[in-house]
Amino acid sequence: MIIIGEKINGSIPRTATAIAEKNEKYIRSLAKKQVAAKADFLDVCASVSPEKELETLKWLIDLVQSETDVPISLDSPNADIFKEAITYCKKPGIINSVSMEGDKIDQVFPVIANTGWKVVALLCDNSGIPQNAEQRITVFKEIMKKAESYKIDPSRIFVDPVVEMLCTSEDGIAKITETIKTVKELYPTIHVTSGASNISFNLPVRKFINRSFIILCMGAGMDSAIIDPTNEDMLGLIYAAEALLGRDEMCMDYINAFRDGLFGKPS
Amino acid sequence: MIIIGEKINGSIPRTATAIAEKNEKYIRSLAKKQVAAKADFLDVCASVSPEKELETLKWLIDLVQSETDVPISLDSPNADIFKEAITYCKKPGIINSVSMEGDKIDQVFPVIANTGWKVVALLCDNSGIPQNAEQRITVFKEIMKKAESYKIDPSRIFVDPVVEMLCTSEDGIAKITETIKTVKELYPTIHVTSGASNISFNLPVRKFINRSFIILCMGAGMDSAIIDPTNEDMLGLIYAAEALLGRDEMCMDYINAFRDGLFGKPS
Repeated sequence: MIIIGEKINGSIPRTATAIAEKNEKYIRSLAKKQVAAKADFLDVCASVSPEKELETLKWLIDLVQSETDVPISLDSPNADIFKEAITYCKKPGIINSVSMEGDKIDQVFPVIANTGWKVVALLCDNSGIPQNAEQRITVFKEIMKKAESYKIDPSRIFVDPVVEMLCTSEDGIAKITETIKTVKELYPTIHVTSGASNISFNLPVRKFINRSFIILCMGAGMDSAIIDPTNEDMLGLIYAAEALLGRDEMCMDYINAFRDGLFGKPS
Repeated sequence: MIIIGEKINGSIPRTATAIAEKNEKYIRSLAKKQVAAKADFLDVCASVSPEKELETLKWLIDLVQSETDVPISLDSPNADIFKEAITYCKKPGIINSVSMEGDKIDQVFPVIANTGWKVVALLCDNSGIPQNAEQRITVFKEIMKKAESYKIDPSRIFVDPVVEMLCTSEDGIAKITETIKTVKELYPTIHVTSGASNISFNLPVRKFINRSFIILCMGAGMDSAIIDPTNEDMLGLIYAAEALLGRDEMCMDYINAFRDGLFGKPS
């Protein structure tokens, strides 16, 4: 499982406060804790006004890189900032994200074409979020055409199927799991990722919805998640699912994660 | 999800003590708590020496039936006791279990043929636990031939795919999920059930393995589980998975379970 640590994000109130107050210690601690929890990438999202975004990102990225060499997931709704922002990063990470909306892809793909950068691709376009799996796959195929034209290998792409809230869904996450299966069938080396919290919007005890959601998506072929890796319950279930899905020989990753104190209490 | 409450089982040390001490209050409390947690059936297993089994079962069943009219899951490794034991039950429940081992089915199926009793059918036979999904399906088809000959409708059968410990498995639970999918394809009205703890034998922090296991099996089509329904974390994940799998319109079962205090804390 490829874990993208979500905590350095200005849309999280405590992180927003730390950004506003230039609280270096707090941002460093978020980086350190997520790395200790074996995050593969650290998402960095400023979530400030556009004119302050680049300088805020630079401040965040410099802080993170002074703590760790775990690569950055560069997170912004504004595709035009990535070209500059990747120059702040010491090593290639993930662009989070592009989609078929506007000219996002044509702005971003040329920039990362001959680099080691990976990219999260949301399955939506100018008409918004597709209503079903079939329409998501239509958008997906358009994205892959673009990727091919820029020679971006499928293994560098993290597909995000775009999850909407469960409480208004008529068939649960059927369209999401169907999308994941089809995407992995079409491109076995591609990655599939998702956040874990949109799904539970407006529902009580959101953690249960979030956790079951990630496990069911893993069962459909998802191999990455944008989560808080310091949440032991979520992380433990994910390591368990990896072993159950036959992706962890002799459960050694699960056992070692326990021994390293990532979840549970070593006896 | 059809929940079979597992707690009144003499193989659980605290329950064994209560049985040995004839602690009526404790057994009653196990029944009451599991009913409050919305168990659909209450498993009752004596786990004592064969000569004491029937009298112990009668004592347990009488106690349970004095507390609740939730039906009994009559649990014994000895097929020859069911004929007598079902006479202790005020209403039909589940026989737990038969398999293709010995003459178990030919002892049990005639007894329940023209009744409302349901039955758990383990996919194993005289040669033990099948090594793969294909062999499990072979055993399954033999069981269904027997069921047909006794006119036991598939909707009365709870298939248990027989789960072995994960730590020595080479491909995780692939053989289990494949078996579940095939069984449900062949007989859409059949039920599939399993306990949640064999899978995690010899592994640390077993709860994570147990919970991910149940959720992944639900994703494959399992619609019943033999669990402790008073465990809020397990129950919450199961209710969440039901909603995610599109089996809970507008999440009303999930929301009502929360409101009824089955998990989380109402605000």
